[in-house]
Amino acid sequence: VMVYGDNEGAIGYLVGEENRGLEYMFTMMNFARLEVGVEGIAMAERAYQHALDYARQRVQGREIGVKSGDRVSIIHHPDVRRMLMTMKAHTEAMRALAAAAAEALDHALSNPDVETKRRGQAVFDLLTPVVKGWCTEKSVEIASLGVQIHGGMGFVEETGAAQYLRDARITPIYEGTTGIQANDLVGRKLAFEKGFTAKAVIAQIRAFDRELAAHGDHPALSVIRRALTTGVSRLEAATDWLLETYPANAKAAVAGAVPYLKLWGVVAGGWQMARAAVIAKHRLDARSGDHDFYRAKLATARFHAEHILPTAHALEQAIVAGSTSVMALDEASF
Amino acid sequence: VMVYGDNEGAIGYLVGEENRGLEYMFTMMNFARLEVGVEGIAMAERAYQHALDYARQRVQGREIGVKSGDRVSIIHHPDVRRMLMTMKAHTEAMRALAAAAAEALDHALSNPDVETKRRGQAVFDLLTPVVKGWCTEKSVEIASLGVQIHGGMGFVEETGAAQYLRDARITPIYEGTTGIQANDLVGRKLAFEKGFTAKAVIAQIRAFDRELAAHGDHPALSVIRRALTTGVSRLEAATDWLLETYPANAKAAVAGAVPYLKLWGVVAGGWQMARAAVIAKHRLDARSGDHDFYRAKLATARFHAEHILPTAHALEQAIVAGSTSVMALDEASF
Repeated sequence: VMVYGDNEGAIGYLVGEENRGLEYMFTMMNFARLEVGVEGIAMAERAYQHALDYARQRVQGREIGVKSGDRVSIIHHPDVRRMLMTMKAHTEAMRALAAAAAEALDHALSNPDVETKRRGQAVFDLLTPVVKGWCTEKSVEIASLGVQIHGGMGFVEETGAAQYLRDARITPIYEGTTGIQANDLVGRKLAFEKGFTAKAVIAQIRAFDRELAAHGDHPALSVIRRALTTGVSRLEAATDWLLETYPANAKAAVAGAVPYLKLWGVVAGGWQMARAAVIAKHRLDARSGDHDFYRAKLATARFHAEHILPTAHALEQAIVAGSTSVMALDEASF
Repeated sequence: VMVYGDNEGAIGYLVGEENRGLEYMFTMMNFARLEVGVEGIAMAERAYQHALDYARQRVQGREIGVKSGDRVSIIHHPDVRRMLMTMKAHTEAMRALAAAAAEALDHALSNPDVETKRRGQAVFDLLTPVVKGWCTEKSVEIASLGVQIHGGMGFVEETGAAQYLRDARITPIYEGTTGIQANDLVGRKLAFEKGFTAKAVIAQIRAFDRELAAHGDHPALSVIRRALTTGVSRLEAATDWLLETYPANAKAAVAGAVPYLKLWGVVAGGWQMARAAVIAKHRLDARSGDHDFYRAKLATARFHAEHILPTAHALEQAIVAGSTSVMALDEASF
């Protein structure tokens, strides 16, 4: 229990003008939402590094298919790899998405060109609930994977892996739960302006998608392109459905709000990873150094395209086909 | 630290014959795997009941689209409904799947017919890693949703919601991690007998799927049928791919082992929910009482078909298309 001025009373100072407190609070709150999203990314990165360190040191079993000889560290086991790649790919995609939102905010705050400034604000407003909601939801899953990589050692306290899961767990709750972020995304950010900014961003992803097509014969980029093309179509279909449905049937639209927020996280994250992959490909072609880094970026972007982008399908289905069943049960029948 | 017989020494008793301890241990372990799966289901059910109780009591905000009047309990909000339905649908599907595995075990232990007994054992062996791995992985996500429904009250200790998440978190680890269960599923249960039992169960799902087709005009059953038909095709495609790939390219196969275990959980769970839905429909048609219960079962099975079964697509993609990227990174590049 925290008590201010229990006996002598406490002194309150008026910040700004009277009766504008809620409005001022939201100035803080909008920045805080981006910052909590970044907190989720930081938790995910820390959980990843911690699990990676353990996976390199912990020796258990032999390579798959090898019956004798030395036992190996668990990073050699395919399922540990899969978990590490899932953590890594998500974290890199989320970081790039948060950077894209921050870039838009920089334009909104400082760009001398009025139209660029306005567009920066609109894109930042659209992406803020996505960065907050998606990066924090995923931070919980990523920290949970970090525990899993540690096995029984992750559940006990001495490795520290469980602490990341506990710490991450608050981030989809405070500064507005994921449900609140998603309602803001659908009601205020999407429907209020009839999808103007959302459609502009979708058009930007489609334009980049055509740029990707120029690398049609590249093994990783062709895979990434196919996944991104499908993903952005799912995002567009869900966007159109929500614009038709809200506000006429607000309950049905809002029933799909969190899946829609996640769909943005998946597809916009995949877009950022694809952008990074194209740059990596050019740098590798130019032999400009950091060879290992760019090869890793290409491999991670491909993993994202093969393991994460395909979830766009189920998210779209949940939105456009699944709204009735969300509200179908009587309260008494739960 | 637990110490036996520190000063006086402890007396050990030989259980059974010498040098057969590991074999005996696995007798215990195989039952324990089913039991830990059921522990996951129990944690999920408890987390669901707890969150449901809170959602019915906690008053916050008004109905979507309503500007004035009484505030309502949060169970009226669509996203809280979505979370509760996700918890409920998963838990019912998992319980039905565990019951199906237990039924197979009953045949294996007691059926006088040799062929039925043999088939019971084979189905139980196949489903054991699925019940253990799937129901425990999901119990963590379901307990986490329970925390989310509580909002900030879920993160602090006094509601008890966080305790379920901590308790559930050990279940995908002990008695063999999900990765170990999945390797058992792919290597021993699937590949060892060249997919014989897996294909028999898939054929059984397909046969039931045709039975579902007889209710083609029923609103819920037609939706459920479409989702199950697609889901079982995904399961079959992944099964065929794994049988072609293992053991020739064991690493690639095992990289998809956990997604394959989850694919079984999704599709076999959907099958059980669809079976329950058909029975519910018949009972409703016959007006044989328990109307609310059977209506709820139909609605929950439909939710499962619309929100959970479509994830089969991404799981299959991860298995058949995603194995290369799992192992693509050098250890040093992580």
